[in-house]
Amino acid sequence: MKGEILATGDEIRSGALIDSNSAYIAERLEREGVEVVRHHCVGDDLGSLTDVFQEIARRADIALVTGGLGPTSDDRTTEAAARAAGVGLVLNADALTAIEMFFERLGRTLPPSNRKQAFFPDGSEILPNPIGTAPGFKIQIETCTFFCLPGVPVEMRKMLASEVIPRLLSLSGGHRQISMVRTLSTFGATESMVGEQLSDIIADFPDIQIGYRAKFPEIQVRLYIRGDDAAEMVNHLDTVAHRVTGRLGDRVFSSDNRSMAATVGDLLADGKATLAVAESCTGGLISHWLTNTAGSSRYFLFSGVTYANAAKMDVLGVSETTLASHGAVSPETVREMAAGARRVAHATYAIATSGIAGPDGGSDEKPVGTVCVGLAGPDGVTSRQFYFPYGNRRAKKKLFAMAALDTLRRHILGMEALDVGMKKITSP
Amino acid sequence: MKGEILATGDEIRSGALIDSNSAYIAERLEREGVEVVRHHCVGDDLGSLTDVFQEIARRADIALVTGGLGPTSDDRTTEAAARAAGVGLVLNADALTAIEMFFERLGRTLPPSNRKQAFFPDGSEILPNPIGTAPGFKIQIETCTFFCLPGVPVEMRKMLASEVIPRLLSLSGGHRQISMVRTLSTFGATESMVGEQLSDIIADFPDIQIGYRAKFPEIQVRLYIRGDDAAEMVNHLDTVAHRVTGRLGDRVFSSDNRSMAATVGDLLADGKATLAVAESCTGGLISHWLTNTAGSSRYFLFSGVTYANAAKMDVLGVSETTLASHGAVSPETVREMAAGARRVAHATYAIATSGIAGPDGGSDEKPVGTVCVGLAGPDGVTSRQFYFPYGNRRAKKKLFAMAALDTLRRHILGMEALDVGMKKITSP
Repeated sequence: MKGEILATGDEIRSGALIDSNSAYIAERLEREGVEVVRHHCVGDDLGSLTDVFQEIARRADIALVTGGLGPTSDDRTTEAAARAAGVGLVLNADALTAIEMFFERLGRTLPPSNRKQAFFPDGSEILPNPIGTAPGFKIQIETCTFFCLPGVPVEMRKMLASEVIPRLLSLSGGHRQISMVRTLSTFGATESMVGEQLSDIIADFPDIQIGYRAKFPEIQVRLYIRGDDAAEMVNHLDTVAHRVTGRLGDRVFSSDNRSMAATVGDLLADGKATLAVAESCTGGLISHWLTNTAGSSRYFLFSGVTYANAAKMDVLGVSETTLASHGAVSPETVREMAAGARRVAHATYAIATSGIAGPDGGSDEKPVGTVCVGLAGPDGVTSRQFYFPYGNRRAKKKLFAMAALDTLRRHILGMEALDVGMKKITSP
Repeated sequence: MKGEILATGDEIRSGALIDSNSAYIAERLEREGVEVVRHHCVGDDLGSLTDVFQEIARRADIALVTGGLGPTSDDRTTEAAARAAGVGLVLNADALTAIEMFFERLGRTLPPSNRKQAFFPDGSEILPNPIGTAPGFKIQIETCTFFCLPGVPVEMRKMLASEVIPRLLSLSGGHRQISMVRTLSTFGATESMVGEQLSDIIADFPDIQIGYRAKFPEIQVRLYIRGDDAAEMVNHLDTVAHRVTGRLGDRVFSSDNRSMAATVGDLLADGKATLAVAESCTGGLISHWLTNTAGSSRYFLFSGVTYANAAKMDVLGVSETTLASHGAVSPETVREMAAGARRVAHATYAIATSGIAGPDGGSDEKPVGTVCVGLAGPDGVTSRQFYFPYGNRRAKKKLFAMAALDTLRRHILGMEALDVGMKKITSP
């Protein structure tokens, strides 16, 4: 069953509003076995709207349309659907009663403009809106079934679940395929490196579609499968994921769409270990990522964001001599930062970052993009230096924070340190 | 000049990724006088891609295409453009050299798959990519000029500005209307509250189009104008922005699209003041926001992300008695946290947060969504309590961080504390 999605409205067309509805709808429909082929967006222009309805009607089996059902003059979806279907608009008495009751519950009388929302294309089926004034409708145009829903995300989502999804099974003639996706998250290789390493594996599994997604600074490998036997599909995804992970090795940090911070958090929680952080160049981002996970207070104790050198000394006990002789961005300093954070917070582990996120502050010896990562644990203190010569200040903060968390992940798992995709300078 | 936008890739088609590129492009093109008529999205399917290229070519004057220029087998945009134009692919030696140099700068040899990125439709013009491996290209198909750019947002934005916009003037035959936008950023009122407060002002200025954009937790009011006299347009925008700011009052924190953190940073830098932060529930987000601004080391000294109570005592000197008798989420604790951070870092000001971001940890007395904000400065220590009963854990962290920064902004500017849109409990 082929599906298309149409978002309407000048706010989306002109870019004042990002369309998040279409992605939500696409994911839900695909999960139900609909093959989403195209998305469209047009503004509140009756001619363009009617054209798109007619184009979609010629190609798709079902279509989801959002927006343009409101009471104002720029809401034209209902009229466009009627024109495309070659029918007139008729008043629906039940819909009018429902709208009147909605306003009664709010203790207000029905504004005249809202009466417009009770008119529908002749022959369409009304889809009730439990939480707003705009009902939706279902209309057949040529061989395509259109579902027109409000553009307000919370209303659209409720009606998609309660009105659209249950009708899909009968539309598909009782038989439909399901689809599944498996996400492998990697750090430390570029998209093209990952793609090349997997090209022969993918050739071995023609029933698996592969997608690469740069969720910077992660590269995600997504394996898609479509079929009708869920258990068999899970087994098959397991097999392929195993081959992929075997090839990419320890660059794969999650196979269930967990973030790097949540992955490290799981490792800490499993080992009943705790973590302290000392952040200079990452400026709080490591702590922010860690605390985005509910339950992170089980293992995350403290981060000292010591932007100023005085704070590095006063809070973490970094020695003035070290700062003076080696500089803030040095293996020596991050080792003292990590040791200091671990000591202050009485933590099992501590990681520390000091680097140059730019745009200023670089030198020939330590260019913008250089970061030193310190790691303190029960077995002592180590450090590594990385160099990321791409991206702006915010991108570099993310790369630095990922490198620090990945250094801890690899240490806990007994893996080699990361040395791909960047220049590594082993500290003296 | 009519424009259309095409986003490509299975990730967007299937809903795995929300397409933010198209809204960005639409806004930029409209500002340059292009009338954006439609957006499209199709996946990595050569047939569908070629069809859409041909459809757009029949309707539009210019088209912007994003994605599908990468090195992997699912990147098909170049091939589709060539097919739609009825030409072959040819190797561009300059582009190959540029890609080779990109890898050389990274200290790596060119992977064979990246060679693919140096092939372009015969007769197209190469658009250099200053920060990535995928160059774009410009190609004429029927009467439409297509600009094909990478899908990575930061690369797309750079190339849109440096390669596409400058070519628009010659395409439009030398004459075009310009459009301008003024952005007023607000915190502390909902979108519908802002909309209602401005409805009569907007009615007074029919030549101004207004848009509301929830850039959570900010609400942005955007004023659009189109014309051909830039100086007159700026004056007119000044007048309307003045009326809007007069109505919304001190909830407007920026009229030049600066973030709350950058706005507070500017105030600190102007007053040669420095800042320390003590974060519990915000988990590093305040520091992360502050350090996203280049030059923040002029005023930002230190943040103690004291997630554990022990860290609040050991690092910030919060007393055990205070924690035991009032709890971590209390006006008393955040006042001691703020005072401690200010003292440790020798800063002019300090702000502190302690609250319940959820999903667990709430109580009847202090439900999830409660946050206490402490403020220490040369004139002493104060605190406020807010309650944000909406959004998930990440949304609440953002609301809490904004409330804390806004508390400092209002203090420095001598404004009343925020008391709209949330329950405020004045501390004893």
